[in-house]
Amino acid sequence: MDLKDYFPVWDRLTVPQQEILSQSVVRRMFSKGAIIHSGEADCIGILLVRSGQLRAYNLSSEGRELTISRLFERDICLFSAACMMNSFQCDVFISAEKDSEVWAIPPRVYKAVMEQSAPLANYTNELMASRFSDVMWVMEQVMWKRQDQRVAAFLLEEAAIEGTDQLKITHENIANHLGAHREVVTRMLRYFQSEGMVKLTRGGIEIVNPGKLRELSE
Amino acid sequence: MDLKDYFPVWDRLTVPQQEILSQSVVRRMFSKGAIIHSGEADCIGILLVRSGQLRAYNLSSEGRELTISRLFERDICLFSAACMMNSFQCDVFISAEKDSEVWAIPPRVYKAVMEQSAPLANYTNELMASRFSDVMWVMEQVMWKRQDQRVAAFLLEEAAIEGTDQLKITHENIANHLGAHREVVTRMLRYFQSEGMVKLTRGGIEIVNPGKLRELSE
Repeated sequence: MDLKDYFPVWDRLTVPQQEILSQSVVRRMFSKGAIIHSGEADCIGILLVRSGQLRAYNLSSEGRELTISRLFERDICLFSAACMMNSFQCDVFISAEKDSEVWAIPPRVYKAVMEQSAPLANYTNELMASRFSDVMWVMEQVMWKRQDQRVAAFLLEEAAIEGTDQLKITHENIANHLGAHREVVTRMLRYFQSEGMVKLTRGGIEIVNPGKLRELSE
Repeated sequence: MDLKDYFPVWDRLTVPQQEILSQSVVRRMFSKGAIIHSGEADCIGILLVRSGQLRAYNLSSEGRELTISRLFERDICLFSAACMMNSFQCDVFISAEKDSEVWAIPPRVYKAVMEQSAPLANYTNELMASRFSDVMWVMEQVMWKRQDQRVAAFLLEEAAIEGTDQLKITHENIANHLGAHREVVTRMLRYFQSEGMVKLTRGGIEIVNPGKLRELSE
């Protein structure tokens, strides 16, 4: 196992610290759509994404969702170990966007090493700063962009992630990423289609004019 | 000077670490309304609030503002030392809401100690988690609450901070806290007045029925 690849500070940990982390790792498999972490009640630990894709999101009391961060191969998820930090008080949910393999480091083990190791604590700080920046980015989009711009940007992001212009995604999925109502997303997609930017198909959405879509998104 | 009061981990720093931090502190005075930190370009350091009140906010390209965190006596502001973290990439602005005295620890000094000291790094982690929770709270309000609820909640928060129901605040100020348009805030305040919740005066807003305002905000 190569924890080393996830932690650039690995060589600055002591051998006992490396051993306790390595020995604590639990391999977990999650099917597409599985809920991995449900708010403050859960705390399965630091998650290292081996393969697949995770999504961290906020959930309203009416069940609407807003994606705050997406995690890919080689990313580290901290939200699932929020109980490590007394001051982290917010309900974040995590689900598997694709079939995923993750390694989990139990929060108590990670915390114990972090409390001894300045390099690991500082690296964790950097990870948190990076998620913080994600959340600030989302907040800026939500506050200052029109919804049609956000839908256009999301389609382009999705095409970049999947490496294809033929997106297999429902209007409901898009609404859940953006914290929008499904009906609003459908209306916008129909408008995009009437303007020749996308083609709505049975199983998804085809981007036919990415340039025009990008222009709208900016 | 009592840096000790700001850092519960103070006794776990070495004497040389305590000395380098103490000696680096610069006392700064800011008048009400002063801009202390302007996005990524600035990095004056970790700010310890001695007296007064600071506000961290996001700014749209059109000049609209959204408060993301408010800092009071004995709080520590990290945003003003964002350059310490490579992964922190977002434009946050900080201004003085009242005449304020702050102590600034230069980012290079703080970072150097944090890199050696696991206790300080972990405490900084807790501070960041706490700001992260602030931002998530704001995002939840923005996403899932109606604007009238947010205006009502803001008036109650302001009354609690100031310890009075006679608020000296303009409609523009409120709009800038909430990322709203001034006209929208004015319309809502007039509605609150017609419902007997507030009284709009020349210099501000008087809360006359806090119970009804609270009911609306929830």
